[in-house]
Amino acid sequence: MRAGELPHTTADILARLRARSPRVHCITNSVAQAFTANVLLAAGAIPSMTLSVDEIGAFVARADALLVNLGTFDAERRDATATALEVASEEGVPWVLDPVFIDRSEPRARYAQSLVPHKPGAIRLNAKEFATLSGAEPDDAALGRYALETLAVVALTGTVDRITDGVQRLEIENGHPLMARVTAMGCAASALNAAFLAVESDPYLATAAALLCFGVAGGIAGERATGPGSFADAIIDALYTLDADALDEKARVK
Amino acid sequence: MRAGELPHTTADILARLRARSPRVHCITNSVAQAFTANVLLAAGAIPSMTLSVDEIGAFVARADALLVNLGTFDAERRDATATALEVASEEGVPWVLDPVFIDRSEPRARYAQSLVPHKPGAIRLNAKEFATLSGAEPDDAALGRYALETLAVVALTGTVDRITDGVQRLEIENGHPLMARVTAMGCAASALNAAFLAVESDPYLATAAALLCFGVAGGIAGERATGPGSFADAIIDALYTLDADALDEKARVK
Amino acid sequence: MRAGELPHTTADILARLRARSPRVHCITNSVAQAFTANVLLAAGAIPSMTLSVDEIGAFVARADALLVNLGTFDAERRDATATALEVASEEGVPWVLDPVFIDRSEPRARYAQSLVPHKPGAIRLNAKEFATLSGAEPDDAALGRYALETLAVVALTGTVDRITDGVQRLEIENGHPLMARVTAMGCAASALNAAFLAVESDPYLATAAALLCFGVAGGIAGERATGPGSFADAIIDALYTLDADALDEKARVK
Repeated sequence: MRAGELPHTTADILARLRARSPRVHCITNSVAQAFTANVLLAAGAIPSMTLSVDEIGAFVARADALLVNLGTFDAERRDATATALEVASEEGVPWVLDPVFIDRSEPRARYAQSLVPHKPGAIRLNAKEFATLSGAEPDDAALGRYALETLAVVALTGTVDRITDGVQRLEIENGHPLMARVTAMGCAASALNAAFLAVESDPYLATAAALLCFGVAGGIAGERATGPGSFADAIIDALYTLDADALDEKARVK
Repeated sequence: MRAGELPHTTADILARLRARSPRVHCITNSVAQAFTANVLLAAGAIPSMTLSVDEIGAFVARADALLVNLGTFDAERRDATATALEVASEEGVPWVLDPVFIDRSEPRARYAQSLVPHKPGAIRLNAKEFATLSGAEPDDAALGRYALETLAVVALTGTVDRITDGVQRLEIENGHPLMARVTAMGCAASALNAAFLAVESDPYLATAAALLCFGVAGGIAGERATGPGSFADAIIDALYTLDADALDEKARVK
Repeated sequence: MRAGELPHTTADILARLRARSPRVHCITNSVAQAFTANVLLAAGAIPSMTLSVDEIGAFVARADALLVNLGTFDAERRDATATALEVASEEGVPWVLDPVFIDRSEPRARYAQSLVPHKPGAIRLNAKEFATLSGAEPDDAALGRYALETLAVVALTGTVDRITDGVQRLEIENGHPLMARVTAMGCAASALNAAFLAVESDPYLATAAALLCFGVAGGIAGERATGPGSFADAIIDALYTLDADALDEKARVK
């Protein structure tokens, strides 16, 4: 796919997401839960978030995608994750790994590394988290190598989002500085990534499309917001009303 | 009560709620906690949400109503629920059962069924949850039978809210489609139901009044919102400013 | 410091906070987590919120301040708190105690009292919580005595905020009635207090400055909001854009 085709492809995948209302089960930290659920609902997906080992298997088995976010690294979430990944593997449910803050804690970093062999469709993270996870500086070559090595799409988000499967790569320059001033923005982007994996079998396209939607919605929200409080609502409104024209007009992909 | 009287009755109960500021203890899932607390505060109630078995008894004993929401079905919440229901029974604290997503998980469904004999004042749920809980299709006859059998008011919410105690029944056609696109809307409606039970001894009136307030507030919010992000704030603002005139003018009850 | 100097001092400390982006680790209840994180981000701090005993030590060791909020009193949070306070003491990380709702539960009150000897820089609480913690009525003399006894700044918030270190005292009459109608306002104020301790070594100035910022932002939000839903976003926007002129013009300190 050429970069110029991404807006059109994204509009197609988003239309499918809205039509199919996929179920996305999220193992995520309690700080991020409500915002993540609202981002998924705004985009057209149906979130669930239980962590109970007694039932998470049932939820994942009926889900169309799974998010594993390490934002709170407790025993309950590790147990939930073990069961969830086992069921996801059996049932062929695609999943996204979001290794939040692994640069702050060695046990969390080792745990994140232990999850990578379970074949996430995509890994969404920032530059410090990539360096901790892969042991390499986050340049294009290292991102590509890590994608090939893990068979996961690597999506490194920041001022510019860089997405690669090791063969193809593209950059998205949408988004807005206020995205760094609202909690759970990255977590919600990863959840959206999972929702797109549910309706698009090519994980590279699904990941690029999800991040383009989130970035364009962020740009629209930035025009309307008077600060991070109003921005958080505005990005949800923008995702809900996002259409092919806005994607086409505003996308900055290369 | 005739349907036409509900707006007036509701305004009376709401005035009592604002005057008395009842305490509502909520056992609810972490996704819903903040929004639920804000809905209760906007309506005039005082929420508390601790789950610790060491202190939940003290909180429930001093509460005027209790919510048990199964949105996260973990061991901690089950222990908290057992203690809370024991204290609620001893102290005569009315409570509402919200059996979230029991159609997704058999253990959760069985657990919900085990709570019904503890005599909730009201059970608020959607059509799939009713079918799972009662084993019957959600038609009017089945709702009425289940209400008589359990001695609980049954409030089945959706595009139309249906409320019955087995003898009386009414339907509320307020609300707004965006309510389905914001997380924890149903959970918050159940919490509001509990707050109304705290100040109105007739659980049928209390439940109908709570759902009318929430539905009318939702309609007002829908006129102001530009998507689900702004809707979530707007429904809280609308609840806070809701008055007898708005209830009278906008209520669609039959 | 004279009361008239507080706005200027506050603007200085706020500028430092925005320049240094201190890390604030928060042990807080799940109801308050997202709003607290967003208040910290709006002010310029970087929040983290993990409670896992396996990693909380690493987070606190790298943090510039710590918040211990008792809003949910469970075994996990008590274990996390024990480790966090040990590391904070070793590393000289200043911390704030917020003994939420200790008037509702004796075990929680005793637990709060057991934390005071660990030398919080500030204790932020309301009148009922102060009475429970100190065993004295919340008059100026008792506040001063308790501050001297505990070596903590005591910040009793309400319609008027009263701050004392036992030698100096001042009152802040900013804020807005809607602050009592949004969950986690007090919790977020305590977190902001911790962020200010991270960049100002005098805990009395840091506490007064934090509460002045929050109160002035609340006043600005109150002018813009149409209810508690829009107020919650507006106070975050106001904190984000708060400047020396607004502090100077709106501060009501004596």
